Amino acid sequence: MTSHLPTPADFAPPPVPADLARWAAADDAARPTRLARLRERMAAEGVDAYFGVRPENSRYLTGFRFGDGEEKVAGNSGRFLVGGDEVVVLADSRYTIQAGREAPGARIVPVTYDLAAGWADLTASVGARRVAVEAGFVSHAAWTALEAAAPDVELVPVEGWVEADRAVKEPAEVERIRAACAVADRALATLLPEIRAGVTEAELAWRLEVLMRTGGAEGLAFDVACLAGPEAALPHGSPGDRPVLEGAVLLFDFGARVDGYRSDMTRTLFVGEPSARDLAVYDLVARAQAASIGAVEAAAAAGLTPDGRSLDAAARDVIEAAGHGDHFGHGTGHGIGLATHELPSLSRVAPKTPLPSPTVFSVEPGVYLEGETGVRIEDLVLFDPAARRAERLTAFPRDVLVIG
Amino acid sequence: MTSHLPTPADFAPPPVPADLARWAAADDAARPTRLARLRERMAAEGVDAYFGVRPENSRYLTGFRFGDGEEKVAGNSGRFLVGGDEVVVLADSRYTIQAGREAPGARIVPVTYDLAAGWADLTASVGARRVAVEAGFVSHAAWTALEAAAPDVELVPVEGWVEADRAVKEPAEVERIRAACAVADRALATLLPEIRAGVTEAELAWRLEVLMRTGGAEGLAFDVACLAGPEAALPHGSPGDRPVLEGAVLLFDFGARVDGYRSDMTRTLFVGEPSARDLAVYDLVARAQAASIGAVEAAAAAGLTPDGRSLDAAARDVIEAAGHGDHFGHGTGHGIGLATHELPSLSRVAPKTPLPSPTVFSVEPGVYLEGETGVRIEDLVLFDPAARRAERLTAFPRDVLVIG
Repeated sequence: MTSHLPTPADFAPPPVPADLARWAAADDAARPTRLARLRERMAAEGVDAYFGVRPENSRYLTGFRFGDGEEKVAGNSGRFLVGGDEVVVLADSRYTIQAGREAPGARIVPVTYDLAAGWADLTASVGARRVAVEAGFVSHAAWTALEAAAPDVELVPVEGWVEADRAVKEPAEVERIRAACAVADRALATLLPEIRAGVTEAELAWRLEVLMRTGGAEGLAFDVACLAGPEAALPHGSPGDRPVLEGAVLLFDFGARVDGYRSDMTRTLFVGEPSARDLAVYDLVARAQAASIGAVEAAAAAGLTPDGRSLDAAARDVIEAAGHGDHFGHGTGHGIGLATHELPSLSRVAPKTPLPSPTVFSVEPGVYLEGETGVRIEDLVLFDPAARRAERLTAFPRDVLVIG
Repeated sequence: MTSHLPTPADFAPPPVPADLARWAAADDAARPTRLARLRERMAAEGVDAYFGVRPENSRYLTGFRFGDGEEKVAGNSGRFLVGGDEVVVLADSRYTIQAGREAPGARIVPVTYDLAAGWADLTASVGARRVAVEAGFVSHAAWTALEAAAPDVELVPVEGWVEADRAVKEPAEVERIRAACAVADRALATLLPEIRAGVTEAELAWRLEVLMRTGGAEGLAFDVACLAGPEAALPHGSPGDRPVLEGAVLLFDFGARVDGYRSDMTRTLFVGEPSARDLAVYDLVARAQAASIGAVEAAAAAGLTPDGRSLDAAARDVIEAAGHGDHFGHGTGHGIGLATHELPSLSRVAPKTPLPSPTVFSVEPGVYLEGETGVRIEDLVLFDPAARRAERLTAFPRDVLVIG
């Protein structure tokens, strides 16, 4: 049952400086189109401006970049206002130089921790009376303060406008996700010979991080999960000082970040000969994943665009038919890009409307038996029905791999 | 002017498993007191329950832990409701096992991405009609949905209740911040011999991260800043492929995370002989920092509790007197603990009320000359006037260090 183990050379090499320069140019070229799309929506909904606070949206529309989590210590810096004619990026003194560099098309406006203090002037400066506000990301307290600060400026709660646009991926965005997938693929292939019973989850998680960070990733997409044996039954567990067990599963869920874009993959390996139970669960999850990806491929080949609920059902039906429906609690997949989890959603409650396209999402069914074992297999898939194309961006094999 | 370079052996060793066990026991012992303090406040303000979404508050009150940034992909998991008699932690299927382990004192309630769907039942289950809600962290969209879901449950916007309690540090919290400071101190001392002109900012930042992560940190407090020469004028700049320059400053701003608690320190080093200009700026910033820390020490010795505005002024006055007031835009310091930035604040707009105590905060004045140079010196300080004690937790020397 053991296949040839993959090696780092099986996967694409890390990005080079010319790639980064090309992506930067592509973003610069795309930004006016992104803004035009937003302004069309603003016009259609009768608002004069759009106020955003989500870091991914700020980067997408203005170019201003935060490190992961930096928004927590940045006050109101990076928040932005798109008016009919101009884009404003807010920056306190710590960020003015950076904002000027990264968002050269924007007017940089000083801000303090008191956003409301400048709100009336800010909205007046772009002539806005009705402002769409990212209601899923602006706190209730900030909302209340803005309302009070400029009673004649109407705040219109909106959600998902920019997120819906971001779900449709430009070619240079797909390139970066593909590059992030290759960094992760290569890192796991490099790690394989180091895996053996007795090494701890935390040691392997750290090694995998080092391999990504020194192999082309500017950072992680999220903390590496490495879960041994029964711990693999925790879909979002964290690596600990638990040793890898002989004859049990070892689950890795991890992703790289390349120029802001993320990858996400899960592989469940076997350290020593697997039990019949574990093999059966693996086979079930693999079949469920193949069913969902098969549905994606069939739709793409036919130029059709399914909804996320049907693609979830394609995987879930296989698992339910085997009597494990209760052991697959999460959704089958999620979009990915500047955020690790973004639109579209593949789940039981996903909207029954056609997926965006072209788009990139994960397909990651799992079966979790508490106290016993867990298996998840996750790939990223590019779905582009207009080009009659569906493609796995995760190249690492999905066969049963026995190591150690 | 060059002092003896510090070495790793100058600083305390990394935490050992017995430390982690002691801290876990201390948290378990402290949690009833933390909850009692919150319930006193609830009673005083006439609310029946407290609904929290901030991960640091969840960990502090319930024990449930996220990895850094994990809340972004966790839906409503980890959010919590404190009633008069019990604590509820919400968890979707990915987190139920973890929540049961980490918050054994809580009732774990299943949740989906639709928080509002279960809101009426949730609040009824603890008999709550008036619920304090973390208005600075709950989105406006969520607030609106909760209001609509249970019109007879009044939502009371509150901010800073748990944060004010967290600003007062328990002994085991101080121990962890102290340990995180030592991890960072030691890492920089280990890095010193590797610093030379030509090495890039990004290479040094990565090495410093590796030294912390393999030297006792479970993670970083925030991304390492390493800024060479004129880049040091960006108070929140990110390391790039810029080489370290001979005869110029090299600024490191970094921190470690130990059992959830964070450190934060900045050192500005000289690679090769410093210019007279840079030395003068360094001397000014060092004097400003000494003035503020001197004020902290004098207050502690007298058993007095100053406000954060006066401690900011102590540093700022020195810089303004030298004509550089416009080159010191940010506040002088911030509290630190489970979050990198928390209460209290040392700034021009900090409240004129006595600091919490005992507490831990940074003292970090800086002077930034755009396109030329930047200097910041940052230490964490424990302030405990009841014990007549103020103590630098950052042990790394602050002398002018010439390396490379």
